[in-house]
Amino acid sequence: MLHFDSDYMRGAHPEILNKLFETNWEQTTGYGSDEYTAGARKLILEACGLKDAEVFFMVGGTQTNATVIDGILYRHQGVVAADTAHINVHEAGAVEATGHKVLTIKSTNGKLSASDINEYIATFYRDESHKHMVEPGMVYISFPTELGTIYTKSELSELHDACKKANIPLFIDGARLGYGLASEECDITLSDLARLCDVFYIGGTKVGAFFGEAIVITNPSLLPNMIPLMKQHGGLLAKGRLLGLQFEVLFTNDLYFKISKNAINMAMKMKKAFIERGYKLFVDSPTNQQFFVLPNELIDKLSQHATFELWGPRCPEETPVRFVTDWGTSEDEIDSLIKLID
Amino acid sequence: MLHFDSDYMRGAHPEILNKLFETNWEQTTGYGSDEYTAGARKLILEACGLKDAEVFFMVGGTQTNATVIDGILYRHQGVVAADTAHINVHEAGAVEATGHKVLTIKSTNGKLSASDINEYIATFYRDESHKHMVEPGMVYISFPTELGTIYTKSELSELHDACKKANIPLFIDGARLGYGLASEECDITLSDLARLCDVFYIGGTKVGAFFGEAIVITNPSLLPNMIPLMKQHGGLLAKGRLLGLQFEVLFTNDLYFKISKNAINMAMKMKKAFIERGYKLFVDSPTNQQFFVLPNELIDKLSQHATFELWGPRCPEETPVRFVTDWGTSEDEIDSLIKLID
Amino acid sequence: MLHFDSDYMRGAHPEILNKLFETNWEQTTGYGSDEYTAGARKLILEACGLKDAEVFFMVGGTQTNATVIDGILYRHQGVVAADTAHINVHEAGAVEATGHKVLTIKSTNGKLSASDINEYIATFYRDESHKHMVEPGMVYISFPTELGTIYTKSELSELHDACKKANIPLFIDGARLGYGLASEECDITLSDLARLCDVFYIGGTKVGAFFGEAIVITNPSLLPNMIPLMKQHGGLLAKGRLLGLQFEVLFTNDLYFKISKNAINMAMKMKKAFIERGYKLFVDSPTNQQFFVLPNELIDKLSQHATFELWGPRCPEETPVRFVTDWGTSEDEIDSLIKLID
Amino acid sequence: MLHFDSDYMRGAHPEILNKLFETNWEQTTGYGSDEYTAGARKLILEACGLKDAEVFFMVGGTQTNATVIDGILYRHQGVVAADTAHINVHEAGAVEATGHKVLTIKSTNGKLSASDINEYIATFYRDESHKHMVEPGMVYISFPTELGTIYTKSELSELHDACKKANIPLFIDGARLGYGLASEECDITLSDLARLCDVFYIGGTKVGAFFGEAIVITNPSLLPNMIPLMKQHGGLLAKGRLLGLQFEVLFTNDLYFKISKNAINMAMKMKKAFIERGYKLFVDSPTNQQFFVLPNELIDKLSQHATFELWGPRCPEETPVRFVTDWGTSEDEIDSLIKLID
Repeated sequence: MLHFDSDYMRGAHPEILNKLFETNWEQTTGYGSDEYTAGARKLILEACGLKDAEVFFMVGGTQTNATVIDGILYRHQGVVAADTAHINVHEAGAVEATGHKVLTIKSTNGKLSASDINEYIATFYRDESHKHMVEPGMVYISFPTELGTIYTKSELSELHDACKKANIPLFIDGARLGYGLASEECDITLSDLARLCDVFYIGGTKVGAFFGEAIVITNPSLLPNMIPLMKQHGGLLAKGRLLGLQFEVLFTNDLYFKISKNAINMAMKMKKAFIERGYKLFVDSPTNQQFFVLPNELIDKLSQHATFELWGPRCPEETPVRFVTDWGTSEDEIDSLIKLID
Repeated sequence: MLHFDSDYMRGAHPEILNKLFETNWEQTTGYGSDEYTAGARKLILEACGLKDAEVFFMVGGTQTNATVIDGILYRHQGVVAADTAHINVHEAGAVEATGHKVLTIKSTNGKLSASDINEYIATFYRDESHKHMVEPGMVYISFPTELGTIYTKSELSELHDACKKANIPLFIDGARLGYGLASEECDITLSDLARLCDVFYIGGTKVGAFFGEAIVITNPSLLPNMIPLMKQHGGLLAKGRLLGLQFEVLFTNDLYFKISKNAINMAMKMKKAFIERGYKLFVDSPTNQQFFVLPNELIDKLSQHATFELWGPRCPEETPVRFVTDWGTSEDEIDSLIKLID
Repeated sequence: MLHFDSDYMRGAHPEILNKLFETNWEQTTGYGSDEYTAGARKLILEACGLKDAEVFFMVGGTQTNATVIDGILYRHQGVVAADTAHINVHEAGAVEATGHKVLTIKSTNGKLSASDINEYIATFYRDESHKHMVEPGMVYISFPTELGTIYTKSELSELHDACKKANIPLFIDGARLGYGLASEECDITLSDLARLCDVFYIGGTKVGAFFGEAIVITNPSLLPNMIPLMKQHGGLLAKGRLLGLQFEVLFTNDLYFKISKNAINMAMKMKKAFIERGYKLFVDSPTNQQFFVLPNELIDKLSQHATFELWGPRCPEETPVRFVTDWGTSEDEIDSLIKLID
Repeated sequence: MLHFDSDYMRGAHPEILNKLFETNWEQTTGYGSDEYTAGARKLILEACGLKDAEVFFMVGGTQTNATVIDGILYRHQGVVAADTAHINVHEAGAVEATGHKVLTIKSTNGKLSASDINEYIATFYRDESHKHMVEPGMVYISFPTELGTIYTKSELSELHDACKKANIPLFIDGARLGYGLASEECDITLSDLARLCDVFYIGGTKVGAFFGEAIVITNPSLLPNMIPLMKQHGGLLAKGRLLGLQFEVLFTNDLYFKISKNAINMAMKMKKAFIERGYKLFVDSPTNQQFFVLPNELIDKLSQHATFELWGPRCPEETPVRFVTDWGTSEDEIDSLIKLID
């Protein structure tokens, strides 16, 4: 059976496992005060071309989103996001559980634009009753988005400027950041991205680690109390070194970027194969999530030998589906899938 | 200057003022444990044709909505509402501040339908990732809606059945309940409404009282701990008798219904006058809020002698506006307005 | 029957009732944007000797405490208070419901001292695990306290300095402020108090109004978004002028101070009578709450003709009790009570 | 350098590492829907002698405490705990951040007794103002406590009965459960403990795992919605199998109990050595945390070669300290420590 359901199905990159072995009997202090965490922090800052930024590590994305958003917003503020945003749909109300509304903007491809933000802000402040409404206090985007799409440098710069103009921070959910940066269509670097937002995170869970997200706060005055905040949100890992050492491995010798590239190569090969066989794209994604519209007959046939997600409810004749590659997907897996569709 | 901005611009019905005078030097126990509150409770239950229901009093609508919704929902649940719902737009995130998401359904006239609910519930549970999503835990509607529209008995019965089928309670925000029930187009009674939902409230603030909303819990097992809940939400009035005596006055000799009728009569006279002069309706409202689309020229002219709300941002040539009547609006005020538009 | 249970048992001062009558048919805009509220704000600032402060009005104390505390604290912070503080005991967890811990200090007479604060802060930061603990983010005191006691100017100055040194704001709950300032033992003025804290409120509910607390923010940078905050906490009264006009009356011709003085005079007469008859004080209170330890026999006898509170559970032979006077207590009432104990 | 600071300083038991290696390239579905998690659940239920209980896995203790407590309590309720409880002191207000008060009872050795609970409940309901207070909605204890002490079967049975009588659930924080059960003074089994509470967890982080706590819900009606709750609290691990396989290893061949026993043996050897040399116990702990009162001179000398925690601020002459052993502590380490104190 082949598996393309998601990018969190395997364990971790073997070098991470090796590092766990090597360091297993060492005794270190807890909660991220160890040398591995310090090392990872240093490597990440270098990779981002940053000096005065702060780096913290948490276990998962939902936890990270809720902690960062709750930490940044004032009580009367909400977070602006695309209606398809992960925080709006698939985090079980974790942001609202901290007391904040997700203020949604309708999106067609998972992306927000500078003009979306400008218009939202302008409309809000033009409304005479805006003091009875939830004030937009920050903007959340994901890179890549939940639909696999990415922002160009120009789009991200404009978004950054729109946020600056509105005097609200820009937060980038990078749960799949590696796969965005490794895309052939991506014209920005990690440094560009770091420069164009106030806080973002580098996803490990879906990109080679067992778990872990590295939060980079490029504007540290925004979140000066991360340790108690993370603790309060239940996200301060006791054996914090486990996060540090995984990111130390991933950011040594560009491993993070290399394994991200593999996922992209496999995804592009898959995409080309589907297109060549005449199947339609549901979204034209340049990253590791591929969305096709397939005849139900083919879906049924494929399902006997491969797992993947229906993207929404089954339709009468053909249905959108999602296939996901990851850092560990092999050429063999893709070839086997292609054989199945022939 | 004439004022049609809203229905909370005057003080209270004179009989309420008289009652305040008469009772001023009495000493009663606090927090709603007094005889006036007991009396109001009894009168309201009678007016609703209910025996085993509970009645509580709070000062304002936002407070009431947040307390009831927070009290009913489990932690992982949200409240389903129209996108135009007061709780979704004009309560500064009070529901989210208690940790719960407002789950919105697109609406054109402020109303939700049974099929909206059925579809929302069906789509939710058909989604394989629904355990990562906010579970719909109750339905909120307003009667009349924020756009002045009302539900027919048949529509409300179907909504009630849809909620029963989904096993979630139906909550009716009745901040303007009197004006809905007094409408000529309304085919339901207070008893019907009480029978067709699990909890609702009878608005006093906008209908003759200085302030106050009477919460009627027809399904008391839903909210067995209202006193500590109200206290925790900052909504348990120390001099609780002030709420009791206002509702005692309003529910004596049908005063609530009579003064509601006045607002409707004045609104219908106003509506007729605008229509006769060729002005378009923005929404065809049978209650005390009237929405027209007026030429900007007329808006400017009227504004010199009357206050009313632009309904959204000013448009190039003509703009939607809202005129509101209330329990105290006089025939003279309407006549003066009509003269202004001639 | 005589009533000394609490200071929120009567209606309001007759001048407030008169004002309600006079203004009843006026139409004003809502939510505190009216002229009465502006007038009250001006009078209060004058009475406080303040120029750049902000004044807002809310309906009740619990609501005010939760809104102010939630608005000031960062997410990871808590509020330091005496263990007997109203917010810690009798507000049904309203502060915790906003997500913040009440950090208590043991107190014997309801008061906190500067050395309490200094020690709390020093111990906290000396603790190596303090980043895993709730950071003290502000100090709450009540004036008078829940036990009727008041702070001297010297005590309050020291508290103020301790907070300044710790760089955390001082918030004073003045639900009974008038009764504190009117006490013969009080050596501070309203201006002194305003100068020695960052935010406080002037209680109306217990001092002559039907309801209402006037929040004075002497350090406005602390709470720059009160309107949405109050709305979100369900505490922005629609007919806001009701709050404004009550405080306008109370702060015209020193009415607030004069009626407060009456409560003190009556309380002192009562206290003297009990002492002269050999009864012990439970707390030596210089304000309108009087605490005695009475033989159960006397309690039973008095209870036939007067209501008052047992202060804690009934003890075998004698039990602490509380008698409360207010702005409207008459000499006759006190004389009748004294006859009862003879 | 020797390390006795805490029990989360090493990696994980080698068999867990081996399992990670073996399974690394397998692809499984996420969020605990995998076979390893199912296997662990089965083994744990067997070890507990339970059939109808539910088992869930989370990453850390603070997260687990907040999720369970928030999930069980109604809005107006709080959790009763010892003042020394981890949730009251060292979780940065995580419980309060969910909106609930921690209701503390003074404790001398970290334990609550049945009479503590009975008295708390009786006092609460005897208080006439209890509807303005936070209702006790559940009881939290830790086993072993934060001071290393454990409950006897008789004490735990009485606590269980007190909770049953008060009709509130009993929750046991078992972050160090293995070390409690392995203690020579412990007269209860895992089955006993499971039978005597409504929900508890088996700590992995401190007992052989990289991370992970296994929540056992013996009264499943209490927490019927754990998946969305865990997700909302940011505690549903994407690669859920990592939790499953660790606990599968720990509950195969009694590994959990065997490695717990090692920590106890080492702790007892250490304790005996200190006592024989005339040093005083700060608490007489039968588990893996040992508390001594040591002369500052000795503390300074030891600190050159070993790390451990001062238990509170340094005192003038002698200061309480904590030494912690764990599943991996070797006889050599203890012998080296003993040499240091000679």
